[in-house]
Amino acid sequence: MHRILSSFAITLFLFGIGTAQAGSRPADVPDGMGPLPAVAPIPADNPMSAGKIELGKKLYFDPALSKSGNISCNSCHNLANGGVDNQRFSIGHLWQHGGRNAPTVLNSAFWTTQFWDGRAPQLEDQAKGPPMNPVEMADDNPKQLMARLKDAGYAPLFSKVFGKNSLNYDNMAKAIAAFERTLLTPDAPFDRYVRGEADISKAAKRGMRKVDEIGCTGCHSGPLFTNNSFQRFDYGTDAGRKAVTGKAEDDHFFRVQSWRNVALTAPYFHDGSVATLDEAVRIMAKKQLDTDLSNKDVSDIVAFLNTLTGTQPEVIYPLLPRPAGRALDFRD
Amino acid sequence: MHRILSSFAITLFLFGIGTAQAGSRPADVPDGMGPLPAVAPIPADNPMSAGKIELGKKLYFDPALSKSGNISCNSCHNLANGGVDNQRFSIGHLWQHGGRNAPTVLNSAFWTTQFWDGRAPQLEDQAKGPPMNPVEMADDNPKQLMARLKDAGYAPLFSKVFGKNSLNYDNMAKAIAAFERTLLTPDAPFDRYVRGEADISKAAKRGMRKVDEIGCTGCHSGPLFTNNSFQRFDYGTDAGRKAVTGKAEDDHFFRVQSWRNVALTAPYFHDGSVATLDEAVRIMAKKQLDTDLSNKDVSDIVAFLNTLTGTQPEVIYPLLPRPAGRALDFRD
Repeated sequence: MHRILSSFAITLFLFGIGTAQAGSRPADVPDGMGPLPAVAPIPADNPMSAGKIELGKKLYFDPALSKSGNISCNSCHNLANGGVDNQRFSIGHLWQHGGRNAPTVLNSAFWTTQFWDGRAPQLEDQAKGPPMNPVEMADDNPKQLMARLKDAGYAPLFSKVFGKNSLNYDNMAKAIAAFERTLLTPDAPFDRYVRGEADISKAAKRGMRKVDEIGCTGCHSGPLFTNNSFQRFDYGTDAGRKAVTGKAEDDHFFRVQSWRNVALTAPYFHDGSVATLDEAVRIMAKKQLDTDLSNKDVSDIVAFLNTLTGTQPEVIYPLLPRPAGRALDFRD
Repeated sequence: MHRILSSFAITLFLFGIGTAQAGSRPADVPDGMGPLPAVAPIPADNPMSAGKIELGKKLYFDPALSKSGNISCNSCHNLANGGVDNQRFSIGHLWQHGGRNAPTVLNSAFWTTQFWDGRAPQLEDQAKGPPMNPVEMADDNPKQLMARLKDAGYAPLFSKVFGKNSLNYDNMAKAIAAFERTLLTPDAPFDRYVRGEADISKAAKRGMRKVDEIGCTGCHSGPLFTNNSFQRFDYGTDAGRKAVTGKAEDDHFFRVQSWRNVALTAPYFHDGSVATLDEAVRIMAKKQLDTDLSNKDVSDIVAFLNTLTGTQPEVIYPLLPRPAGRALDFRD
């Protein structure tokens, strides 16, 4: 990955962009901040391939992953919509609500753990959660889901990607994860600014310096604006990571969320209780840094956060496998 | 439209297709059957434009059309999936179920009335139904929906297409209808057969002649395999068109469904009570034509119906307008 980034930088240097500043990092950008990496880490046991990504895309958009046939990955992590559903708590099986706000799938390939409480080490593990969650897709067991995917006609598609008799829960998760690793959002206005390709507003620049100055970037650090750590956020009743580890010291600990595309993912926090980014910024500064922000500070920081909305992935809507002339066995 | 079709035929004649049979209609194709028309009728008061189609696509895929923010047109008329949801009765607001099987949106631009009971004259009228239906998208009134679409950021998009201050329910329906008029499925195996470009199986040919011989094509006639009439189908408790007209003679009357893409739209009939196309064919022949089909007849007819699955529209998944850093007002 480093090599790819380096040659990209060299290319920029050699060919320039046609403006005086092209390729030069503005002096006011705080250390550590930088453009979104071009590719996400890929696990050795799940190499990417065009076929696997295409299969993963079908699975991602297929409501047949849910017992009812009504809910797909995309229902809650909508790629038309910043990779979220803008609900406080997503609506699942039988219109039940989940207990935490659905995080965006965009750039999730970069997180070193998944879910608000980090209970899944990587995307392959995450993808196996919702299908069996009784308030989400609600299948009784992976066998039932695999039978339905077989019925839908997925077996030959899995064979092409994973070899014979390969329609199983692990491979389903691998294909979905491979697709998700393509869901990156490069070229945000901030990225173009850091690369010296374009300017951002004065307000955004003030906000950029302010988040560094008051210490937000202690945790929201690096090109992803998260150090992937767990931090105590004493807000609401959710015990967070404590429920995973059983340790009292993890009470109210949550994974530090990325700021990438944060302007698209309202409402905010693990409980989706805050409707605006302004309010979320104000609360975080007070709770985590004991800092009272002025209205101007908030407005500047939000202007900066808005520059982190990147180019959304262009997705050709897939065609799903289905048996000709026969209904699938969907159940409430 | 006629002119377009004629010049298309001339083009085929002049340039041929490179096989001996190219351009010649096989002798065994019953009169009246033919390839899907290249374009659907366009109403004079809703001309097509690229901008309107793109706006309509966003609206079609936008769950903000529903009060809950959870249900889009595409939820029940899924373009990944033959334009349907493969549910017996679609799942709507608060997980309520509708009372009739969701028809496909594909080629719906050709129907002279919409809905099973024909209660909407054209697509523009149809599009105004589900948003206000309490068991579907469940908005209380168009004003509430328009306020939410304005909140979402649609006003400038409407302005570009319809002029200033044009965000209203009629224009929403017009844009959706314009998009739907692009959802045609040309080049089905049957169409290529009729045009002398490719062969279909012997079973499909027997089925093609059989549906003509026993009289299915009395109603399922022409290139769309529907004459768009209402016919009595004495099956189940649904009074059908009678509920629209109030006339006793319309009791149990339903719009004749097209056979185009019928292999993709299980389960079957207005009440979605039949899981397989085989069974649907058998029941229709018995109920409507008093004909007992042999297993071979059924299998032949289904082979023919399978040749009516056309090329599905390729759709680039849209990006939806949303306010930066602010949640929309979705309600259960």
